[in-house]
Amino acid sequence: MVKIAVLGYGTVGSGVVEIVNKNSDVLTRHTGEEIQVKYVLDLREFPGDPVQEILVHDFNIILEDPEVRLVVEVMGGTGAAYEFVKKSLLAGKSVCTSNKALVAKYGPELIRIAREKKINFFYEASVGGGIPIIRPLINSLTADRIDEISGILNGTTNYILTKMTYEGQDFDTVLKEAQALGYAEANPEADVEGYDACRKIAILSSMNCGKQVDFEDIYTEGITKITQADIAYGKAMGCAVKLLARSKVIDGQMYAMVAPFLIRKDHPLYNINGVFNAVFVHGPALGDVMFYGSGAGKLPTAAAVVADVVEAVRHFGCNVLIDWSEETYELGSADQFSCAYLVRVAEADEEKLGALGSGRKIDAGIDGEIGFITETMTEEEFARRAADVPYISRIRIA
Amino acid sequence: MVKIAVLGYGTVGSGVVEIVNKNSDVLTRHTGEEIQVKYVLDLREFPGDPVQEILVHDFNIILEDPEVRLVVEVMGGTGAAYEFVKKSLLAGKSVCTSNKALVAKYGPELIRIAREKKINFFYEASVGGGIPIIRPLINSLTADRIDEISGILNGTTNYILTKMTYEGQDFDTVLKEAQALGYAEANPEADVEGYDACRKIAILSSMNCGKQVDFEDIYTEGITKITQADIAYGKAMGCAVKLLARSKVIDGQMYAMVAPFLIRKDHPLYNINGVFNAVFVHGPALGDVMFYGSGAGKLPTAAAVVADVVEAVRHFGCNVLIDWSEETYELGSADQFSCAYLVRVAEADEEKLGALGSGRKIDAGIDGEIGFITETMTEEEFARRAADVPYISRIRIA
Repeated sequence: MVKIAVLGYGTVGSGVVEIVNKNSDVLTRHTGEEIQVKYVLDLREFPGDPVQEILVHDFNIILEDPEVRLVVEVMGGTGAAYEFVKKSLLAGKSVCTSNKALVAKYGPELIRIAREKKINFFYEASVGGGIPIIRPLINSLTADRIDEISGILNGTTNYILTKMTYEGQDFDTVLKEAQALGYAEANPEADVEGYDACRKIAILSSMNCGKQVDFEDIYTEGITKITQADIAYGKAMGCAVKLLARSKVIDGQMYAMVAPFLIRKDHPLYNINGVFNAVFVHGPALGDVMFYGSGAGKLPTAAAVVADVVEAVRHFGCNVLIDWSEETYELGSADQFSCAYLVRVAEADEEKLGALGSGRKIDAGIDGEIGFITETMTEEEFARRAADVPYISRIRIA
Repeated sequence: MVKIAVLGYGTVGSGVVEIVNKNSDVLTRHTGEEIQVKYVLDLREFPGDPVQEILVHDFNIILEDPEVRLVVEVMGGTGAAYEFVKKSLLAGKSVCTSNKALVAKYGPELIRIAREKKINFFYEASVGGGIPIIRPLINSLTADRIDEISGILNGTTNYILTKMTYEGQDFDTVLKEAQALGYAEANPEADVEGYDACRKIAILSSMNCGKQVDFEDIYTEGITKITQADIAYGKAMGCAVKLLARSKVIDGQMYAMVAPFLIRKDHPLYNINGVFNAVFVHGPALGDVMFYGSGAGKLPTAAAVVADVVEAVRHFGCNVLIDWSEETYELGSADQFSCAYLVRVAEADEEKLGALGSGRKIDAGIDGEIGFITETMTEEEFARRAADVPYISRIRIA
């Protein structure tokens, strides 16, 4: 019998308790042990919910109970969550978390402590919800020199862009609808400005290079300025607008960026719609690989957390090597990130497009303006060339 | 320093040697050890190839060398491959293989020996080439009760069907072209009759139920009878024809089948084209998950084998639990597998369609015939209802 504690009884936490109870035979099958939730920590009371019987308000009860060998952290944030996770690890308890903010900021320190203590710190659910991507990076994609990780890592923005694309509504309308459906927060900034995706690609990038990629170093642009006109140009080009979190290694240097991109129809990420997430990985030997699934939601996320619990129980007494050191990785300057651009200008400014170099014009049937697809160039070169081009918008092309 | 031996210097074997040499720093990063190929076993000589220096013709040299702690089997077949793998495991050497025939037939026995010897028998590359699917089943999808695994698991047939769909050629023409390009064997039976996909879904089904699903028990139908007319009906329905290897659990009973299916546009497998493979997994908590990538090819397959080597080296002295016993699982009868069907009949026989029950007619613009989409029913019911309907063809709808 393995006894675990769950910190936080919110959406994911209640999902974790539900799955551990409901699928106990499945977990026993994969671990050879029975797994039981001994405590749930939450400041709130839940009268009428059976969780009330195992509810505690004082973390020290969990910390000081030697029977608890594993702690699930699904509180979120980097305050108490960080304190509790670190104390748990130092006390020799393995930790599984869905907390991307915690992992992006403190991942390598927590991984080091786990290694020193011969226990494990796992965080599959911190990126891509129910999609297995963290563990495949640890133990399936380990033979190749991964040169690209690009993901649709935020379900809220993908839902909004999908609705805008297929139903023709504008950003504000779809955002309100997403909020009403619970797909977007009352304060949607973390999603629509790309901050959530930024933390996730910081985690994936760090795991790829083995060092700490600070999320603050990643150029991040949200989707709030995307309009129906942008989407119309995308359609005319056979492309969809997606918020991509990208990490590329070029000549041994890694670059990372979060921004809306136009994705061509033949790219595996083109068809990822609605609240679904996907992570595209490329390596010279592997070629293209993609992982697709529910990027959020109570049960998919909880299933990923509980799979971490299974893996941690299978590895009691044995640390699973995760190569992610505390040393900071210096990302290449976003200025040097290169791609082609779609640039929209007023018809009156058409002659100024010459400054952007060669390329081709594209007509999306929008009165009074014209689109122009540049050749591939760095951000720096684009900024220089476009300095005197009064463009309406520009979107990168993946 | 870890010394390994590679059995077989064919396409995958030479890829394994290439990746181990070229990415040795990557492998060291993930294992903490340097990995070196000490022997390659092959009956042939390779004059001029550096492999010649480490080439041996006698398996006993490898078996009796205590320095070799890990053996890669990429010979194929179930004769010498089985003998060598079993002897290696019994001698305490971990084994990694890409050999689906071996795994489908002897997997549980070899897994048991590995467990008894506290070593590992890994076989990621046996299904889906470079796509991680075996290891995710072992350690990422372990919290849920998986109720469906459906895959496009054969690149040759997917290439042929894609060409037929988008370029309008007939089966025989595309097959010849695929043979010329090396995408299909001179004797294409194993691919086009579905036997290859059958072994792969037998492996995935076994891993899902934890018992041995015999591939001989899986109803298997190939793509040789698919015509342009079938594809035209698919298009009229917004569907693509794909060879699916399916395994479903309904009320606790697993059913498996390999056959061409019509897949709707909104299904994640719809867009898997060319030689790519994908595996779709569903569970009540996880929802939809899909793994996509190169299902074959020298380097993708070799990368999966070498990732197994990395994982085996990380687990020297420690067996990774794979729950797949030698006990035979009794699949539900294929008669009880249920789906809707597209049935094509001559216009003259249109009135006989009434026997199939309610449904809807569909016109694909083909002179002299009509299509009919039935409601969902079991194979048994379809056979009974269709007994007096002289249909031209029938295709299942996923």
